Amino acid sequence: MKTLLIVSHPDILESSSQQYFLSSLKDFAEVTVHHLEEVYPDGKIDIKKEQELLKTHDRIIFQFPFYWYSSPPMLKHWQDVVLEEGFAHGKRGNALKGKEFGLVLMIGVSEKEYQAGGTELFSINELTKPYQAMAHKTGMIYLKTLSIFQFAYMEEEEKMDTLIRYWQMLTMESNTSLASREKWLISQLKKAMQRTEDKKDAEIFQFAIDLIEENRSSIDGLKIVLDQVRQSF
Amino acid sequence: MKTLLIVSHPDILESSSQQYFLSSLKDFAEVTVHHLEEVYPDGKIDIKKEQELLKTHDRIIFQFPFYWYSSPPMLKHWQDVVLEEGFAHGKRGNALKGKEFGLVLMIGVSEKEYQAGGTELFSINELTKPYQAMAHKTGMIYLKTLSIFQFAYMEEEEKMDTLIRYWQMLTMESNTSLASREKWLISQLKKAMQRTEDKKDAEIFQFAIDLIEENRSSIDGLKIVLDQVRQSF
Repeated sequence: MKTLLIVSHPDILESSSQQYFLSSLKDFAEVTVHHLEEVYPDGKIDIKKEQELLKTHDRIIFQFPFYWYSSPPMLKHWQDVVLEEGFAHGKRGNALKGKEFGLVLMIGVSEKEYQAGGTELFSINELTKPYQAMAHKTGMIYLKTLSIFQFAYMEEEEKMDTLIRYWQMLTMESNTSLASREKWLISQLKKAMQRTEDKKDAEIFQFAIDLIEENRSSIDGLKIVLDQVRQSF
Repeated sequence: MKTLLIVSHPDILESSSQQYFLSSLKDFAEVTVHHLEEVYPDGKIDIKKEQELLKTHDRIIFQFPFYWYSSPPMLKHWQDVVLEEGFAHGKRGNALKGKEFGLVLMIGVSEKEYQAGGTELFSINELTKPYQAMAHKTGMIYLKTLSIFQFAYMEEEEKMDTLIRYWQMLTMESNTSLASREKWLISQLKKAMQRTEDKKDAEIFQFAIDLIEENRSSIDGLKIVLDQVRQSF
């Protein structure tokens, strides 16, 4: 699975949270990071090139700061010119059909304000309906949004947790069964083993992989037993 | 009441519907038409000037084509830079508090598609939540949206009806009692009388005004009778 990460931020070097997440992606060969303001500093988008990029990826993610409950202007411009009728919607406009689509939102206000009675009034689910409608019109499968609230105030452990959820959003199959999450984790551990130069770390990664695979064998064994028990009734 | 009409359209001369509505506003001294792409062709917004404009008006209207369920990029840029913390929200950020806010949307798809089962999936009310949240955060009173669906396909009479609803959106007090709608209509007729050079037209306008005022007297008279009847029980 190949993922196209379309990032939009008017001043990305000033954003430590954007830097934190983007710098973590160096070893993910299956993720294409595409920062619009960097690729098109004059705002003139190469429509054909963008459409080719979309065609060659299976999952499309928009990542941006959630200013005024929407994207920066550059990403809206991209939507308006790239997602043409005849390409993304309308007659014969089925280039995006069946692909997955999701949002990664950086949000400066705390989560509890996103409800009736809060300063932001509506939930993220309500405020992102324009993107849900876009996915619907273009025939894309909408993934659960990854909303990152007040990243700068997070403890180190919470930041690491969020980073893992971010990697999953970008690379893990959307089937979230235990088996598929295990498969994803093992592939990440194998990559980490190849990267590390510390023999001790490599041993720990191998130990974790063995443990997960052993647990998987136990679970599979139990399932067979359970099936037999069921059939005997 | 003074109204600031903030128009955003990337190519307004090509839009016959935008031209139809904007050209009708010449005689409305109380409406300031402010087309962002025209005022700022290089995209560089004079923030202080925009904030002064907002301060000196009582009703703020955004008018734009509803591409991908949101505004053109220029208006989003305007929101991001003009509606600063300390001006429009946050501590001491109460410059917009108590003003009225509304949307005039030009929509290319038919109204019936804006529901579950339709190509657009959600209603206009659902898709405009980001603007409702903006009004809430800045303390503005949200007016009913004027959604203009498929203007180009309308019959002449429907176009005229829409134009009157447009004028009301821009200039009529949001109290929509019969009395206040009458008051608005009389003021419009008086203006039309002053403008016209045709004596016959002027007579017709005067006749309409007299009729409305006479009806108003009858209604007021009936109300007094009704009150007396109520008190006698």
